[in-house]
Amino acid sequence: MNHAILTGHCADREGLVAKMTLWVSRYRGNIVHLDQHVEEEAGRFFIRVEWDLSGFEIEDEKIADRFSAEIAEEVGLDFSVGFTKETPRIALFVSKESHCLWDILSRWTSGEWNVDISCIIGNHPEFEKVAKQFSIPFHCLPITKETKGEQEAKELALLEQYEVDLVVLARYMQVLSDSFIAAFAKPILNIHHSFLPAFAGARPYRKAYDRGVKLIGATAHYVTPDLDEGPIVEQDIARVSHRDTVQDMIRRGKDLEKVVLSRAIFLHLNRQVIVHDNRTVVFT
Amino acid sequence: MNHAILTGHCADREGLVAKMTLWVSRYRGNIVHLDQHVEEEAGRFFIRVEWDLSGFEIEDEKIADRFSAEIAEEVGLDFSVGFTKETPRIALFVSKESHCLWDILSRWTSGEWNVDISCIIGNHPEFEKVAKQFSIPFHCLPITKETKGEQEAKELALLEQYEVDLVVLARYMQVLSDSFIAAFAKPILNIHHSFLPAFAGARPYRKAYDRGVKLIGATAHYVTPDLDEGPIVEQDIARVSHRDTVQDMIRRGKDLEKVVLSRAIFLHLNRQVIVHDNRTVVFT
Amino acid sequence: MNHAILTGHCADREGLVAKMTLWVSRYRGNIVHLDQHVEEEAGRFFIRVEWDLSGFEIEDEKIADRFSAEIAEEVGLDFSVGFTKETPRIALFVSKESHCLWDILSRWTSGEWNVDISCIIGNHPEFEKVAKQFSIPFHCLPITKETKGEQEAKELALLEQYEVDLVVLARYMQVLSDSFIAAFAKPILNIHHSFLPAFAGARPYRKAYDRGVKLIGATAHYVTPDLDEGPIVEQDIARVSHRDTVQDMIRRGKDLEKVVLSRAIFLHLNRQVIVHDNRTVVFT
Amino acid sequence: MNHAILTGHCADREGLVAKMTLWVSRYRGNIVHLDQHVEEEAGRFFIRVEWDLSGFEIEDEKIADRFSAEIAEEVGLDFSVGFTKETPRIALFVSKESHCLWDILSRWTSGEWNVDISCIIGNHPEFEKVAKQFSIPFHCLPITKETKGEQEAKELALLEQYEVDLVVLARYMQVLSDSFIAAFAKPILNIHHSFLPAFAGARPYRKAYDRGVKLIGATAHYVTPDLDEGPIVEQDIARVSHRDTVQDMIRRGKDLEKVVLSRAIFLHLNRQVIVHDNRTVVFT
Repeated sequence: MNHAILTGHCADREGLVAKMTLWVSRYRGNIVHLDQHVEEEAGRFFIRVEWDLSGFEIEDEKIADRFSAEIAEEVGLDFSVGFTKETPRIALFVSKESHCLWDILSRWTSGEWNVDISCIIGNHPEFEKVAKQFSIPFHCLPITKETKGEQEAKELALLEQYEVDLVVLARYMQVLSDSFIAAFAKPILNIHHSFLPAFAGARPYRKAYDRGVKLIGATAHYVTPDLDEGPIVEQDIARVSHRDTVQDMIRRGKDLEKVVLSRAIFLHLNRQVIVHDNRTVVFT
Repeated sequence: MNHAILTGHCADREGLVAKMTLWVSRYRGNIVHLDQHVEEEAGRFFIRVEWDLSGFEIEDEKIADRFSAEIAEEVGLDFSVGFTKETPRIALFVSKESHCLWDILSRWTSGEWNVDISCIIGNHPEFEKVAKQFSIPFHCLPITKETKGEQEAKELALLEQYEVDLVVLARYMQVLSDSFIAAFAKPILNIHHSFLPAFAGARPYRKAYDRGVKLIGATAHYVTPDLDEGPIVEQDIARVSHRDTVQDMIRRGKDLEKVVLSRAIFLHLNRQVIVHDNRTVVFT
Repeated sequence: MNHAILTGHCADREGLVAKMTLWVSRYRGNIVHLDQHVEEEAGRFFIRVEWDLSGFEIEDEKIADRFSAEIAEEVGLDFSVGFTKETPRIALFVSKESHCLWDILSRWTSGEWNVDISCIIGNHPEFEKVAKQFSIPFHCLPITKETKGEQEAKELALLEQYEVDLVVLARYMQVLSDSFIAAFAKPILNIHHSFLPAFAGARPYRKAYDRGVKLIGATAHYVTPDLDEGPIVEQDIARVSHRDTVQDMIRRGKDLEKVVLSRAIFLHLNRQVIVHDNRTVVFT
Repeated sequence: MNHAILTGHCADREGLVAKMTLWVSRYRGNIVHLDQHVEEEAGRFFIRVEWDLSGFEIEDEKIADRFSAEIAEEVGLDFSVGFTKETPRIALFVSKESHCLWDILSRWTSGEWNVDISCIIGNHPEFEKVAKQFSIPFHCLPITKETKGEQEAKELALLEQYEVDLVVLARYMQVLSDSFIAAFAKPILNIHHSFLPAFAGARPYRKAYDRGVKLIGATAHYVTPDLDEGPIVEQDIARVSHRDTVQDMIRRGKDLEKVVLSRAIFLHLNRQVIVHDNRTVVFT
């Protein structure tokens, strides 16, 4: 069974849904999911269409071109098409905290996600053994101020070699350089251990404790050159009280972080997230 | 400004969205919201379309007939149409607890909702003064086992007299008879003070305390002849601990009850709720 | 029935709980609630003791002095004592949004809280009628840049005249001056319409929308000279999605704001909140 | 560093906290945590005291006897004492779902919990490889109606052999017999995939879908002979909508189940849970 998933956005105008759904129907595609949204303020139209390809009259590799020529160009739709038979390839970046890493590995190994973990890259050697346990290549690339450029070049080479579609920063405690982000040019998901925009930057639980908040949070977002400022995919919070020390917050926050990051990865893998203007439309 | 809102459901088949949106466009309706859902298991299609009527080429009172003849009959769509310029008329049924009553009255008086509170019916005299404060007619209809039939007949007469579109049971502690529900034949919203189906029936907080749950809840649902078994519109919960007595649960539950009921009323008024097969599709 | 409630904090040391509970027992007080907390990082001890005064051997008005002389001075406890028979007096400050006002008035009028609403002060005339409906004195004190000092002086005079124990800013859209805060010298509770420290200052829902967060929140805190920086008493959040416009956030946020503010007021009235070092211990 | 943790409950009376804290102080124990609770309705007193044993004048193995003789017998306290230097021993019971298993193993292997996973017992062979990956003994004991008694006897023998303190049913799809529960006579924690008491028994997500609830939940509870009726330790919920199929609920529920079960295990291991009369006091 193979489905096509088309996601895109354009300036809103009359009849967009009808136009696109008719196009799918005309070639005998059977639509199984349709989500659309009009952001009224910006007058922007967003769509996600998923259809069954059995009996579809256009070959997979020609769908994007045909749709572009027959629909997208005319209405100015910025779109992409993916296929459920494809298995996306992920690289995990880690440092010294393992809870997100374990959460991702356990979902992958148990078949919860249709994904390849192509490699794990750490700036510390800690998780080489874990990687080995799952027979996943591990690369240790320690980074200092001096070696950053050089090591990021090695990372980029690895991402190319492994044909990685998505980088997941699973509590990776290094800031990626602007040039790395530009050179990779594919999505990078990060988990930040606060409900952004509160407590951006370092040591958010310390800051949360000092401010005396009654909620702690976690935020999964795409990485952009502005630290902790990228489009938010998912957030969640937990209640805390005066009884929680900074250490309690760190411990309890781990459960938020891993679940929030994994939810964001799952949404991304299913092409449920559309980014526009530093905000996300998440079709659930 | 006047919008039409059409909601409906039918057996799923190809091209339903295109067919309906094209119909609106053909008569120069400008769609401002479109939500659709396919319940895969039952193969059921649900839709809500809202369009701007300025420039629409069919008069309001003929829209339902024309849509029925040109679209709905063919595809078997069970639908209804409403208009945002209409102000729905509500009757509130109350007993001795006032938190839901106050919450509804304050939203109405502050203009948060476009609704008429046509009357308040109590089986106790308690809230006559409150009703007077807001210049709303109050009718006290005490009910005993013996007088139930007679009093419900009076209630029905009042509902007809006030041309009521929706009855809201705002912590009304009487069970409506099957014949009342059948005779009224319009929607009735109730708030039950537990996360149904847990703790249906009387004294849910007492039961929650005795069971030692760590969450209490509230459930807004449409009333059907099966007590506390009608289609659920909205639910929410709050955490409790061993520190909460039954009285604490009752006090804290009030905040849940009033907000959950008011959310359900708002969703209903906006025609965001579609009922089918004792379940609801809630387009938010 | 009358209970004493003693709350306080001091540097932690051995035997504080025993010392204080024995003191109560020695004079035949029956402890009905005891909460204590040691903030490990700062080595600070917090306590709340509530005891039944029937049979207590010290008169109410002498309890503070005797406890001070016999216990508090020795251990350096910063404490206060209140009595459940006392009815605290509140002043409500309002502008043009009524949801918090209604929520507070409905709790008061229905007897949910043991409190006197001594007066309502508005910088707009909007809610004079509401105040009248509840027979509460209303004072309209419009504020401009030029008149601020003068009007705040009138407010202070009113607070003194009404013997107000607590000011509640129920969506009051004026910043209180440092001198007002210093002169009043009693607690002031505010509701801010975001999960602080995110989106402090003006137009938080606008900022939340622009940032694309997936949660909106509300924060009740004590007012200090630093705007939106005072000790947080209570916070809560609601999930939002791309479907929520700024107006939807504002509407949905109202439900958060009123419930969070009212929870904070209730906690304050019950003397469940202890402030130290810009953070709160909230015994629930 | 070694702490003693004493937990217990008895009929409430004057001076219990003072009596117990003085006892600890008398032998030069430094109390680091003290929690107490009086359940007013039943007049029951609950306490948890944790103190530093460096300098404590009673040897670890004599503490229980001395406390019993000098305090507990007199006041009728049902208590137990544990030590933070001890590492509790857990057995995991599993079937075919691995999410709770992985969650527990990852917390253990990363050092988040001070615990020994002594063995994994499965009624299916699925997770032998996972157990091997972590060098944990795995025992496959398939159960049929006919072999239940025999297999449970083997399980009991294993639990004795491994000196197990706590059995965790990590989505183990067999009902333990009354005789097994009686013979083991130590705590057994289970995770049920609903917010109990709603949807007890088999296929809770199916039932939740059919009922049309807007929340799904998970409940961690101690096992008693009454199926799904044991004392609840922890619960949590997630919002669902009409868009969630039964399969979506199952997938999303996994995240609830694993986190709720692990929270309950952590609370149990820290001796933060006291059971009385089929309810729990959870000191957090």
